[in-house]
Amino acid sequence: MSSPSAPEAHDGPVDQRYTVAVIGGTGPQGKGLGYRFAKAGHTVVLGSRSAERAGPVAAEVTERLAGVRGAGEVSGAANADACAAADVVLLAVPYDGHAELVEALPLAGKTVISCVNPLAFDKRGAHGRVIDGGEGSAAEEAQRLQPEATVVGAFHNVSAVLLWGEDDVLDEDVLVVGDLADAKAVAMDLAAALTGRRGIDGGKLRLARQLEPFTAVLISINRKYKTHAGLRITGV
Amino acid sequence: MSSPSAPEAHDGPVDQRYTVAVIGGTGPQGKGLGYRFAKAGHTVVLGSRSAERAGPVAAEVTERLAGVRGAGEVSGAANADACAAADVVLLAVPYDGHAELVEALPLAGKTVISCVNPLAFDKRGAHGRVIDGGEGSAAEEAQRLQPEATVVGAFHNVSAVLLWGEDDVLDEDVLVVGDLADAKAVAMDLAAALTGRRGIDGGKLRLARQLEPFTAVLISINRKYKTHAGLRITGV
Repeated sequence: MSSPSAPEAHDGPVDQRYTVAVIGGTGPQGKGLGYRFAKAGHTVVLGSRSAERAGPVAAEVTERLAGVRGAGEVSGAANADACAAADVVLLAVPYDGHAELVEALPLAGKTVISCVNPLAFDKRGAHGRVIDGGEGSAAEEAQRLQPEATVVGAFHNVSAVLLWGEDDVLDEDVLVVGDLADAKAVAMDLAAALTGRRGIDGGKLRLARQLEPFTAVLISINRKYKTHAGLRITGV
Repeated sequence: MSSPSAPEAHDGPVDQRYTVAVIGGTGPQGKGLGYRFAKAGHTVVLGSRSAERAGPVAAEVTERLAGVRGAGEVSGAANADACAAADVVLLAVPYDGHAELVEALPLAGKTVISCVNPLAFDKRGAHGRVIDGGEGSAAEEAQRLQPEATVVGAFHNVSAVLLWGEDDVLDEDVLVVGDLADAKAVAMDLAAALTGRRGIDGGKLRLARQLEPFTAVLISINRKYKTHAGLRITGV
């Protein structure tokens, strides 16, 4: 149902190759995203609090990529060193401790992609944490703490299990929100590493308030239907 | 990717027929949903503040259904009379004035489905309104105001244009949230009138906090891509 005047958003994979630092690169989400990015030819630096923790995970991902033609290099580093080595920094960390961690990173001038999901869990299941009285999100917090960086939100809703799984291409869409088109374009390009098509421009950065806690709905669906649910946008 | 232990949630249309009162039945969302429900054989009472306004819209929908085999009857009534005639009440009203309207309706003992989207618009586009400091939603407000009713949230993200359009079956999924399985099952059944398959159980009622403002993301996508975007859940 694409219209002739629609922007070129579903051109399929693009040729641009990035160097991506993955902060939280030893966690399941960060490791899975790093694996997919490298598989598609991007260079990946998995960051961790200590280089010693990052190294073995980078080695594990590198081993998994053995024989994949055109795969990018994967290395491990301490978080700050990972940032220094990259133009694009993916924040894939838990929301607990988020502010302290983001504040301390050398992110000035970088394109920063946040996939941080501020969630809470109780006996009724997963739900969104209230950030700034309902008028904030992890991505906006990162932008506020790092005014010299350009923060976008993306990759919130992708299952770590599927990222590390065997499917060549994930069925879902990657939604990207942000206030600057150039930075959004980077995340939309990177999305093709997962889904085989560019990410979808979901609007302004403040709509991260919607993308982040939507993960709670997917977790509820996973629990009910014993699956790894994802989000796809129809009509685009 | 359905698993053998998954609940029977995608059985396709069910035989159960409901009588549904659509509050806000003369607005585009209410009229479109009423049309789809009646097309699938449910009886529909379009409610409005005055029966005089509802009658002509009911006649328009009835005319559109002429020749549709098995279509349900569509009539118009004042809101309170519409509720009295139905077991299932769909709230399809703007959030402005929501509390006063819901409080005044005779909803005790009814299954109430809220598709109310509390949105705000400014020069940066659509975004979610903050309800109860981020810890509320229109659906939860309706439940609080009508403790003798059972409120579920559903149909938030379906385009009015597509509802009233020519497509026999909409491509998207209907997500249903609520605290009581029986009431959720009603909305999941009714979803088949739109999509040809049952709605998806999205979890507890409080997750309406996520479904309602997600519509702002779809509105952003519509604007960018000149489309009528919808939501589909992969993996179920």
